[in-house]
Amino acid sequence: MDYDVLIEPDLKESADFIKSNWRSKVLVIYAQCKVDYTGRAKSNLDYGSRLIITKPDGTIMIHGRTKREPINWQPPGCILSAFIQDDRLYIKSIRRNPKEIVLIECPTVHTILACNCEEGEFTLHGSEKEMVQKVIEDPTLLSEDFKPLKAEYPTPFGSVDLLGLDKEENLVVVEFKRATAQLSAVSQLKRYVDYFEKRGEKVRGVLVAPDITLSAYKLLKEYGFEYVKLDALR
Amino acid sequence: MDYDVLIEPDLKESADFIKSNWRSKVLVIYAQCKVDYTGRAKSNLDYGSRLIITKPDGTIMIHGRTKREPINWQPPGCILSAFIQDDRLYIKSIRRNPKEIVLIECPTVHTILACNCEEGEFTLHGSEKEMVQKVIEDPTLLSEDFKPLKAEYPTPFGSVDLLGLDKEENLVVVEFKRATAQLSAVSQLKRYVDYFEKRGEKVRGVLVAPDITLSAYKLLKEYGFEYVKLDALR
Repeated sequence: MDYDVLIEPDLKESADFIKSNWRSKVLVIYAQCKVDYTGRAKSNLDYGSRLIITKPDGTIMIHGRTKREPINWQPPGCILSAFIQDDRLYIKSIRRNPKEIVLIECPTVHTILACNCEEGEFTLHGSEKEMVQKVIEDPTLLSEDFKPLKAEYPTPFGSVDLLGLDKEENLVVVEFKRATAQLSAVSQLKRYVDYFEKRGEKVRGVLVAPDITLSAYKLLKEYGFEYVKLDALR
Repeated sequence: MDYDVLIEPDLKESADFIKSNWRSKVLVIYAQCKVDYTGRAKSNLDYGSRLIITKPDGTIMIHGRTKREPINWQPPGCILSAFIQDDRLYIKSIRRNPKEIVLIECPTVHTILACNCEEGEFTLHGSEKEMVQKVIEDPTLLSEDFKPLKAEYPTPFGSVDLLGLDKEENLVVVEFKRATAQLSAVSQLKRYVDYFEKRGEKVRGVLVAPDITLSAYKLLKEYGFEYVKLDALR
């Protein structure tokens, strides 16, 4: 059996179990708890039953009843500790830089599951990289006169997905999004276009995505950029 | 007891349990599984032991051994089903718009926890809203001659955090970030400044954040904007 389940463990048992397992297993702790976070911001979450999930890489998440986003969390690289004080179990996660602390106070622990989650092979089709590759193989997807020069062209302000030329020798800066393009995608494209224009180039900006929001499309037109509709999976 | 734990349930029992509980409880399923996603992209995750978490709002997440991000997920609003086919348990999550399907195939279910997670009161100090409020109360935090006009000023391209005037009657567009400002923050500010300049205003762009990356700072200078260092919690 590659997992353990504790039912209604006492607080001491819970602390010992967390301490000896958090570095090797994924832990799911269902407990009554309150959560205080301090760092560049501060937050407090009042008492309630929640799921606390820890991973061997130092990730911690506190999940409530709704939403994909945890209520509180720390990224990989944090250090976990568990201890008893004033008849409470405390679970503490410390991030070094920036200094951030999540402190969980549990009057009661209902159950703890310790398990050996595995990674396994993950393949994704329809990524932006794949979209770029398709346009390189068939530049007419973009326009009749587009000539690709370089994918992932580095600038001080980020990498351009694809750089090319049109028949008037304008530089064509192409930004790809695999889902609906938002305002931020247009602003990102603007950043690259500004960069090349500032250096004396004649530049066209092109945004490639399966769809675009209306506000993003209006901004695109204000900037004189072009939109090419392309599905990530075609 | 406000939770249930099934240990080594058979597949039929698992399917029934999931069907009758997913709309009212948070479910944590530790199972051997593979995951296929189809939508605007496609992904496949090979067999392995993973945590499958579902919430009453229709959220589903598949968590692996590392990282804060689930390997696969669907947002609130999805419809869950569970059924048996060819000696496998299938858990299927359907999102309507855009159409996206996550299909989980489980040869074995190790354990299922069904629990009543609670939301509870959550308070956050050090939000961008609070930073704006502090500058409105003490405009000298920004500069000696800054006069706030309006917070959350709407434009077609997003809301400006704070709009004001300086003593030369230039429009001052202020964007706040509560953590380290990135390139995207500068590009966002650029979007608002462009908007007002296009409409004939004389505009200054100011970015307020506790810290800024070097590349973001260089871009800020290229655009002729200003940076004001301000902690979210001061």
